[in-house]
Amino acid sequence: MDPTKITLDENELPKQWYNIQADLPTPLDPPLNPGTKEPITPDDLSAIFPMSLIKQEMSTDRWIKIPEEVRDIYTLWRPSPLYRALRLERALKTPAKIYYKWEGVSPPGSHKPNTAIPQTYYNAKAGIERITTETGAGQWGSALSFATRLFDLECTVYMVRISYDQKPYRRVMMETWGGEVFPSPSNMTECGRKLLIEMPDTTGSLGMAISEAVEDAATHDNANYALGSVLNHVMLHQTVIGLEMQKQFEVAETTPDVMFGCVGGGSNFAGAVFPYIGEAMRGKGDGDCPRIVSCEPASCPTLTKGVFAYDFGDTAQMTPLLKMYTLGHDYVPPGIHAGGLRYHGNSPLLSKLTHDGYMEAVSYHQTEVFKSALTFARSEGFLLAPETAHCVHAVIEEALRCKQTGEEKVLFFCGSGHGDFDLAAYDDYLSGTMTDPGDPTDAVKESISKLPEV
Amino acid sequence: MDPTKITLDENELPKQWYNIQADLPTPLDPPLNPGTKEPITPDDLSAIFPMSLIKQEMSTDRWIKIPEEVRDIYTLWRPSPLYRALRLERALKTPAKIYYKWEGVSPPGSHKPNTAIPQTYYNAKAGIERITTETGAGQWGSALSFATRLFDLECTVYMVRISYDQKPYRRVMMETWGGEVFPSPSNMTECGRKLLIEMPDTTGSLGMAISEAVEDAATHDNANYALGSVLNHVMLHQTVIGLEMQKQFEVAETTPDVMFGCVGGGSNFAGAVFPYIGEAMRGKGDGDCPRIVSCEPASCPTLTKGVFAYDFGDTAQMTPLLKMYTLGHDYVPPGIHAGGLRYHGNSPLLSKLTHDGYMEAVSYHQTEVFKSALTFARSEGFLLAPETAHCVHAVIEEALRCKQTGEEKVLFFCGSGHGDFDLAAYDDYLSGTMTDPGDPTDAVKESISKLPEV
Repeated sequence: MDPTKITLDENELPKQWYNIQADLPTPLDPPLNPGTKEPITPDDLSAIFPMSLIKQEMSTDRWIKIPEEVRDIYTLWRPSPLYRALRLERALKTPAKIYYKWEGVSPPGSHKPNTAIPQTYYNAKAGIERITTETGAGQWGSALSFATRLFDLECTVYMVRISYDQKPYRRVMMETWGGEVFPSPSNMTECGRKLLIEMPDTTGSLGMAISEAVEDAATHDNANYALGSVLNHVMLHQTVIGLEMQKQFEVAETTPDVMFGCVGGGSNFAGAVFPYIGEAMRGKGDGDCPRIVSCEPASCPTLTKGVFAYDFGDTAQMTPLLKMYTLGHDYVPPGIHAGGLRYHGNSPLLSKLTHDGYMEAVSYHQTEVFKSALTFARSEGFLLAPETAHCVHAVIEEALRCKQTGEEKVLFFCGSGHGDFDLAAYDDYLSGTMTDPGDPTDAVKESISKLPEV
Repeated sequence: MDPTKITLDENELPKQWYNIQADLPTPLDPPLNPGTKEPITPDDLSAIFPMSLIKQEMSTDRWIKIPEEVRDIYTLWRPSPLYRALRLERALKTPAKIYYKWEGVSPPGSHKPNTAIPQTYYNAKAGIERITTETGAGQWGSALSFATRLFDLECTVYMVRISYDQKPYRRVMMETWGGEVFPSPSNMTECGRKLLIEMPDTTGSLGMAISEAVEDAATHDNANYALGSVLNHVMLHQTVIGLEMQKQFEVAETTPDVMFGCVGGGSNFAGAVFPYIGEAMRGKGDGDCPRIVSCEPASCPTLTKGVFAYDFGDTAQMTPLLKMYTLGHDYVPPGIHAGGLRYHGNSPLLSKLTHDGYMEAVSYHQTEVFKSALTFARSEGFLLAPETAHCVHAVIEEALRCKQTGEEKVLFFCGSGHGDFDLAAYDDYLSGTMTDPGDPTDAVKESISKLPEV
């Protein structure tokens, strides 16, 4: 009997994160000060981040030590299991082998605490008393509420209004851990009040919520800001996923041919695949890199329909300019269920690797995605988050292709989170009321036309 | 650094369940036919159970083989981790060591699939096409919907109305796995229609829902009934918990002094402790048994205020008479959040062991229970089900007692399920609107006066 899951002992938890900036053939384009258009300095960021995280953001050291205090808390759910989806393979009658890393075992139910814990740790060490942030689907806000509680810090979460309305229990979860949650746009900030006047009925967006959280942190001395994705240090922390996987695939005596992951800001997938891309860049083994495919929603097609250019990370144009794939900071994605993928931009690192040909991207509509989520739940048992369901759809399509060709490919997807708080979305699908938003091409064209000049 | 959790490999998953009927000093009082008051025969039960399960129900074999097909599915989440609650110990500043077995890792989020999987397996082998059941909090209905899907059987769930109303997402979860869910009392059955006429505004109860599910199975040839607790074969299947724990405590080089568990029908706690009681009965080791404490709600105090007598398992008086602790089959517990503990009766095995002095019992009000659940969530991270929170409250009280006496006791509680679907209850507590139902003494006295004569 093939094993269902490959587990590791706590003492096999990685001791260092992997920093892909050490191995990039050409360096990352620097973030720019939106006023001067000059590269930003560590000092520019110190109003909202502790210096230790700013150093990680800019570091080109290949390996960065995971503090013992962080590893200690990681053991609450890590190392996470690598599953072989035997029952899904059987249901699809595919010769392909399907593996997935299951991050749904963390207390908040996703990969997000992998970075929430170290970010809170470094802020606590710097004497910060409160952390502000935004959240889309609620997974990041939950993770930060959980993390701040373990270090006795306060937490203020600006939650995208449509998710706040769709997922009241995510709010309660954050409050259970002691977080304070506001629907965004809110009247707690200058930019929030402005947005509410301009668009009183807006569903909100991650871009708007980021603006609010950044303003809150920048205008309060004891507070810093934390971002759940996009930035280099977030990708760094998430590599604990891929580093564990490499040990687990060694135990399984195989290696993935194609890797799929859902991409909003990009952190769960970056964490899973950067250690693989890094090995290929360093010519380790046969120097071959697996095929790596980012999966995104057709209604927020950043990698598939966006441009690779400098843009703001937020709607209110408060953040530095980042070189990334973007749909334009003005783009407001339709209110699909995968709230965590509703972001106009993307990780600069993941964007560069896509632009340089190490990664590719596909996009899907939510009804086809939920059909695959149901296939997964009814064979493997776990209910996946709508975000994660995007890459399950991709893996199922590839496995069915293998069925036709007879290829025994090893497929992988990153199981970034569970769907316990997304049952309203499943209900929408099961009751036949789920729809797919229309073609975003015109809206994207318009918002891209407003990109800042650099 | 002490390890946070003790995990086992899949190949260490027990190959046999432990049957405590083999080691009882005096045999269990038999279930009685309510008409004749004679012990029921296997044939009496065959209208709603497959013969393989009836044999397990009555077996006095000590070890019963776990079928390979069942072990194969168990590996989706088993062996489950044994946690050391280091962070809770630190928060309480107690010298006690606190361990818990975490059953929240299963796809439906509780210990219930440990028996749903084998019950479905044996029904499938017997050619049954549909299984009916009741559910309180929704955990058992979810587990059976999950299990039946993996064996391609249909599933009909009668869900206690108050839970159906409080937890719409539990219904959607069951539907995602393909289960069909009705609020109980429903108009799908004769006894449901009768109850609706007598008590049109009833919150429902497990006793009523059992009546409906049993009637449905008894009146349809291709359908059988499955119970998520109470019966001997359910306790048997759950011993996979305790058997894993014994290996894990060996790895931890310690053994529990006091064991706590929440008890509705009793299966999660029976599963955890029966292997320990059995070893003590057989005089293994020093022959000492840990102190074993069942935790129940003050508003449904079966073990602490009930009587040890023959009673019906359901409200409509359709089941055999079981010798158990009972509050009377007419007792309708107030609508507390811990829906899984709202049962008038109890497992005959657990009842006998309590009556014979192997186990004791305590009861708590829900507001004190939720206070402890919050303490746990804010130190250990995981959100517990309201049912599970009852034994966390007990363990915290004992740990604080140890703090005063300086005793380094080893405490254990059974982490039977997560609280992802109980955020409305947490909201009730956090917003200060949660109340404790009044003293049930008079209602209990009245319903006990109506016990059947034997």
